[in-house]
Amino acid sequence: MHNPFFINKGPFKISEILNFLGIKNDKLYEDIDVTDISDLISANTNNITFLHSKKYNEVAKKTKASFCITTSNLKTELPKTCMPLIVSNVLVSIAKITEKFYPNSINDIFDDTCSFISETKFKDKIKYGKNVLIGNNVSIGANCTIGHNTIIEQNVSIGDNCSIGSNVVLRNAIIRENVNILDNSVIGKHGFGFFPNNSKNLRYPHIGLVIIEENCEIGCGSTIDRGSMSNTVIGKNTFLDNQIHIAHNVKIGENSIIAGQVGIAGSTIIGKNVKIGGQAGVSGHLRIGNNVDIAGGSGVIKDIPDNSKVMGYPAKSLREFLRENK
Amino acid sequence: MHNPFFINKGPFKISEILNFLGIKNDKLYEDIDVTDISDLISANTNNITFLHSKKYNEVAKKTKASFCITTSNLKTELPKTCMPLIVSNVLVSIAKITEKFYPNSINDIFDDTCSFISETKFKDKIKYGKNVLIGNNVSIGANCTIGHNTIIEQNVSIGDNCSIGSNVVLRNAIIRENVNILDNSVIGKHGFGFFPNNSKNLRYPHIGLVIIEENCEIGCGSTIDRGSMSNTVIGKNTFLDNQIHIAHNVKIGENSIIAGQVGIAGSTIIGKNVKIGGQAGVSGHLRIGNNVDIAGGSGVIKDIPDNSKVMGYPAKSLREFLRENK
Amino acid sequence: MHNPFFINKGPFKISEILNFLGIKNDKLYEDIDVTDISDLISANTNNITFLHSKKYNEVAKKTKASFCITTSNLKTELPKTCMPLIVSNVLVSIAKITEKFYPNSINDIFDDTCSFISETKFKDKIKYGKNVLIGNNVSIGANCTIGHNTIIEQNVSIGDNCSIGSNVVLRNAIIRENVNILDNSVIGKHGFGFFPNNSKNLRYPHIGLVIIEENCEIGCGSTIDRGSMSNTVIGKNTFLDNQIHIAHNVKIGENSIIAGQVGIAGSTIIGKNVKIGGQAGVSGHLRIGNNVDIAGGSGVIKDIPDNSKVMGYPAKSLREFLRENK
Repeated sequence: MHNPFFINKGPFKISEILNFLGIKNDKLYEDIDVTDISDLISANTNNITFLHSKKYNEVAKKTKASFCITTSNLKTELPKTCMPLIVSNVLVSIAKITEKFYPNSINDIFDDTCSFISETKFKDKIKYGKNVLIGNNVSIGANCTIGHNTIIEQNVSIGDNCSIGSNVVLRNAIIRENVNILDNSVIGKHGFGFFPNNSKNLRYPHIGLVIIEENCEIGCGSTIDRGSMSNTVIGKNTFLDNQIHIAHNVKIGENSIIAGQVGIAGSTIIGKNVKIGGQAGVSGHLRIGNNVDIAGGSGVIKDIPDNSKVMGYPAKSLREFLRENK
Repeated sequence: MHNPFFINKGPFKISEILNFLGIKNDKLYEDIDVTDISDLISANTNNITFLHSKKYNEVAKKTKASFCITTSNLKTELPKTCMPLIVSNVLVSIAKITEKFYPNSINDIFDDTCSFISETKFKDKIKYGKNVLIGNNVSIGANCTIGHNTIIEQNVSIGDNCSIGSNVVLRNAIIRENVNILDNSVIGKHGFGFFPNNSKNLRYPHIGLVIIEENCEIGCGSTIDRGSMSNTVIGKNTFLDNQIHIAHNVKIGENSIIAGQVGIAGSTIIGKNVKIGGQAGVSGHLRIGNNVDIAGGSGVIKDIPDNSKVMGYPAKSLREFLRENK
Repeated sequence: MHNPFFINKGPFKISEILNFLGIKNDKLYEDIDVTDISDLISANTNNITFLHSKKYNEVAKKTKASFCITTSNLKTELPKTCMPLIVSNVLVSIAKITEKFYPNSINDIFDDTCSFISETKFKDKIKYGKNVLIGNNVSIGANCTIGHNTIIEQNVSIGDNCSIGSNVVLRNAIIRENVNILDNSVIGKHGFGFFPNNSKNLRYPHIGLVIIEENCEIGCGSTIDRGSMSNTVIGKNTFLDNQIHIAHNVKIGENSIIAGQVGIAGSTIIGKNVKIGGQAGVSGHLRIGNNVDIAGGSGVIKDIPDNSKVMGYPAKSLREFLRENK
């Protein structure tokens, strides 16, 4: 996956990868360089990809990847140009390989590249509070302000006219123009993605970013996790109230309004002009259409088509909910 | 609105206001000074007010304001002493005018008037942690303690015997005696009030305060927004647990107990001796009576009379809820 | 209660305790030293305990305590070796006495024993960010990292290979090996425990700890309160997502997974291998078995047996919930 921030430590010889995964090397293939890891669709020649469910059979048939981590059951779905690498647990193997290519994507320990802003090139360019820290590979546009004790960790790009509050932590994020991020928010940490494993869970890599488009506002105490294999995106002119949690890979369209304490679980896609009332929750891997109203307190557990109004837990048509709850 | 903190930049000539709003000036009125902006009830002679809904017709008839931003449909409700200023969008116009009178009420960028407390008059008067910051126009009573990294931004008054935790951000707030504010809370930021507007929302001014009466406790990671045209008030001896969100203009009575992760939406009025269980939510613009018990997890979407016990989503009589959910 | 952190200010003469509680001293007993306060089961000879409900009659009959704060109705349940001290409000009296033995357990004002880590023995032993503070009685294992602005207040023990994020506040906690605590979390503050009292509530002491076993992860912006008379415990390899609230005395078993914005109310015991979906809430004083799945958004208000899947508010069998909500 192309990513401006996480450095690809590859290429690695395929023999090294086989060895690393504990796969017997029959030397049936040339010991070529594997250049990157990617999903079935994005992968190119000399990349490694993965297939762990029949759901992706159609996509698998067309992959350009040269290698694919998969199971014996699924290997027949791959094109001849893609060599299957058979493992017992595809997701665990892919986690290990992703970590090999992108080691910084697993661990989110504090950024020790940070310096006080007064010791950086930004010291005369922007307005900042006390004790502000800036990590490596940070860019900040014109007319920005950064509040006290805020930590801009590495791999952050901030557009013009942004206001970052106090006690904020940013990392692995692209912030466009005219964005306000309020106090005590944490943006760009890894998501809650891991493989449960008795006595020691295995972290899934997060090589995605958080992208916040122009004119957005993010309320106090909110958390927005970066994506795992794709990005987490907040569309332009979308406003988030306080104490909101946006999980990894979520995408929210433009001109949406999300009230306090809402939570959006991982990989859900939300359309534009969507209104979500306070404390509502949306399950993961759903699609919420455009112009949807979700009433406060609702729990959404299935897709919602465009132009719908829903309420309840599980959320249903607002009209139906109100009729049943007169 | 009288307010000890936000400085009124007026008066402005009415000709300047008309021009600013893009209203044709027929010079039918003397070019007098407009001294303040206020609601229909509080406004005095030479003030400007606004009327945007029939709901307020009765109040409108009695306003003392000299000018009123309104629509052609509503202008006939005003007394002869009040000149209508006809606009297409009343709320947008009032936002613009309020910003003109109170420019600091729109933007909540970090307070650059802050100094380290060791450089202020408080350095020998109170007990404080490392890296504490104090802005302009702050007063602190006797026997107070302020934790590490806490930021007391401008316009804060703290009474005697208060304990402010670490990593707290305070602004535009009056804190009475014997109040405890726990770590990582943010109090006094603007509420989630704005006019949705494609591609760029328009912020509504927040010229209210947060007032926390004596003997209160505010739990860790809570957020309490200041009011827009009135104050946000926490009554005396009311205790809030962790991660609670109190929106703008909310008023909570005395001796109330609010458990973790509760959210109260904007402008709701809650009585005294009210108990609210964890994760319950209360919609905006409601009235909750005295001695009300709201069970944890409830979603309250209508007014609740005194001495009621409610549960459910939408919240109903506790007895009824338990009968239906045996 | 044995506790490595809170210092017992006793012993106190029984005459002093009687006087303090306003109990008439008939001098029927020798003026012996009372060495500690504890619950009915843990108390030893020369300790003081309390009995406030018939529920505990069986346990009361076997207590080894020499004194018991109770009411006239309940005093007959005590063995002859235990002298009843009759008061009008048992819980208020026990709060007062616990505060007498453990004065530091009531107040959670910021820890003024903190120094910058660069001035401590840890400066060359671990990797740390800017502005890190360390209080008295702190131990930190090998290979740990501590992020910027983090405050390790007094009475904290951290095992090897732990990663503490930025803006974290820790106090009264034992953290085992390989634990990650993410940014802006607050761990070890007193719980939301107090006796409601008109005009001024009375705080209940919290002499318990937070114990986080090995291999756990605690997400950003989470709060975990320490116990009152027992500990709050997170079992090994249990992962908590962002913005979770764990109240005092809660115990969670190993290998559990708790998604964003979940809240667990006080004294609830949760088994191992439990999965809790986002925004679910669990009431206080419940027992949740092993291998239980609680769906996101659920509100659990009664005990749940092992191996159950539940959903809804109030939570019921998942199968039943889905059938009723097709």
